[in-house]
Amino acid sequence: MVQNSVFPTLVHQALEQAHFPSQPASLYDPIRYILSLSGKRIRPMLVLMGADLFGYTELQHAIPASLAIEYFHNFSLIHDDIMDKAPLRRGKNTVHQQWNANIAILSGDALLVKAYEELAKCPVSAVPYLLKTFNQVAIEVCEGQQLDMDYESLNCVSQDAYVEMIRQKTSVLLGGALKMGAIIAGANEEDTQLIYNFGVHLGVAFQLQDDILDVYGDPDTFGKQVAGDILADKKTILNVLLQQHLAGDDRQLYQSLVNNTSITPQEKIDAVKNLYTKYDVKSLASDLKTQFTELAFHDLHQIKVPEIKKEELLSLARSLMDRSY
Amino acid sequence: MVQNSVFPTLVHQALEQAHFPSQPASLYDPIRYILSLSGKRIRPMLVLMGADLFGYTELQHAIPASLAIEYFHNFSLIHDDIMDKAPLRRGKNTVHQQWNANIAILSGDALLVKAYEELAKCPVSAVPYLLKTFNQVAIEVCEGQQLDMDYESLNCVSQDAYVEMIRQKTSVLLGGALKMGAIIAGANEEDTQLIYNFGVHLGVAFQLQDDILDVYGDPDTFGKQVAGDILADKKTILNVLLQQHLAGDDRQLYQSLVNNTSITPQEKIDAVKNLYTKYDVKSLASDLKTQFTELAFHDLHQIKVPEIKKEELLSLARSLMDRSY
Repeated sequence: MVQNSVFPTLVHQALEQAHFPSQPASLYDPIRYILSLSGKRIRPMLVLMGADLFGYTELQHAIPASLAIEYFHNFSLIHDDIMDKAPLRRGKNTVHQQWNANIAILSGDALLVKAYEELAKCPVSAVPYLLKTFNQVAIEVCEGQQLDMDYESLNCVSQDAYVEMIRQKTSVLLGGALKMGAIIAGANEEDTQLIYNFGVHLGVAFQLQDDILDVYGDPDTFGKQVAGDILADKKTILNVLLQQHLAGDDRQLYQSLVNNTSITPQEKIDAVKNLYTKYDVKSLASDLKTQFTELAFHDLHQIKVPEIKKEELLSLARSLMDRSY
Repeated sequence: MVQNSVFPTLVHQALEQAHFPSQPASLYDPIRYILSLSGKRIRPMLVLMGADLFGYTELQHAIPASLAIEYFHNFSLIHDDIMDKAPLRRGKNTVHQQWNANIAILSGDALLVKAYEELAKCPVSAVPYLLKTFNQVAIEVCEGQQLDMDYESLNCVSQDAYVEMIRQKTSVLLGGALKMGAIIAGANEEDTQLIYNFGVHLGVAFQLQDDILDVYGDPDTFGKQVAGDILADKKTILNVLLQQHLAGDDRQLYQSLVNNTSITPQEKIDAVKNLYTKYDVKSLASDLKTQFTELAFHDLHQIKVPEIKKEELLSLARSLMDRSY
């Protein structure tokens, strides 16, 4: 995935050079910690790729926007992990686990402010538009996280409501990252909207795929507990589609499996997977994923820049959508 | 206090007209709730007063910056109340008490983003400078809150460290509010710095006074439990000065009172107040308050605008610093 590209190197260097004060240590140590847990850095790369797509060559001027997106992403991880009571993140302790919830709340807040500090370093004429874009993304991510929490206590969530939730919670940040790059590059309004849509559609497709891989992924390559979502009764596209199609006694059977502590984890996984198979839920979910992937490629196709400029984004998109299962 | 002034009305109207989405209700209801708990609205008024001081007449263009400051303040209240496990705020349930901690974390986050949304509505040429100023204030407030939490577990905090903590936690927001008004009004750099300093010095003086009033305030007018800080072993300027001056056996006596559960609350209050009297701590604290008040008035005095323009700020400052005790 874009291994020969300059973007990962630029992002890596920028994060290496990012400096946070030493004191108060209990505010800034957690920030250094979360940023050091090496993710794929897709989001900050997308800012640079969005700018590059539209012929912007002074990529160092897009670095602050790139960092703003990565800081925002990590802020949301710190706070979401508190809310989800998650003990681990990328195999390491979450911030609230490593320190405590108060420190996680406050260092998250500070990291969000640091994201806005990076925005303030962007090319000055672009700052107002970037600020509006970033705010729009940020508020949608909050709304998406709230919907996610609200949906956990609902028995039945429609497919559209679920897709809208993941769009807000995870996908607008990808679209927003690309859009910020486009803004810095001075792309026209239509292309700016198209690259945003590309990111959002790709993000939805990626999240749908993530839901599918949780159950059907190759345990050796997926890197998480297989079917962890089933065991946690988590809302996923599979679960949402199943609820939509369950008929007759199967509805009661499924309800008896949810929150069931008298069967073994493997029995629960097998029973739910049997229902998924019976109602062809994997295919339905894969079709939906394909729809969103095609929408994304269509968005990118419509953007009026030379096709060669689109190659890195196409390659990234393909590599993201081509994980084995 | 500025009763005949236009500023409270403008702020009140702006908050009345502020609109938040109805959904997700669990995200926006807490925001509506915290903003409805009527505070004195000093901070948003300071933005308008800062602009007015420098002859700015289009005050409606300063309203978004004014709301940004009020939203930020309320965001910090929501999150601080979680961290302090405070059940009540202005006599009503805190957000985490009324809903839960997760909802308080996320609605606080959303309110911080909403503050930045207001910033994005400010006069476009001022947005980059306002954003920088706001970020600087916001990060210092986070640092101040962290220091406050750090200091709770320390036995002894120096006077300077304590003043620096309250400067960051509470005073820079007052200075920042005034500075944002000055920026919108296009004040020169020197005056902008002076009005910022005025707000910070006044804020420190006000917080010192608050510490003094907690113990020595008139119970009928102060509106909080008298000497609640002593009972909670909270760091205050009185406690910090006492620790600095305690001699001989009194140090041991004081330590025996801290975290002491075998005496009645009134016995603890009386014993600590006896030590305050013995070491003349109230006078020392009042002197320090006076020093900061004088610094504030000196800052205001130096600003190069007609004296008549300063009258509302002077009157506000005097009314803030003239609460009975």
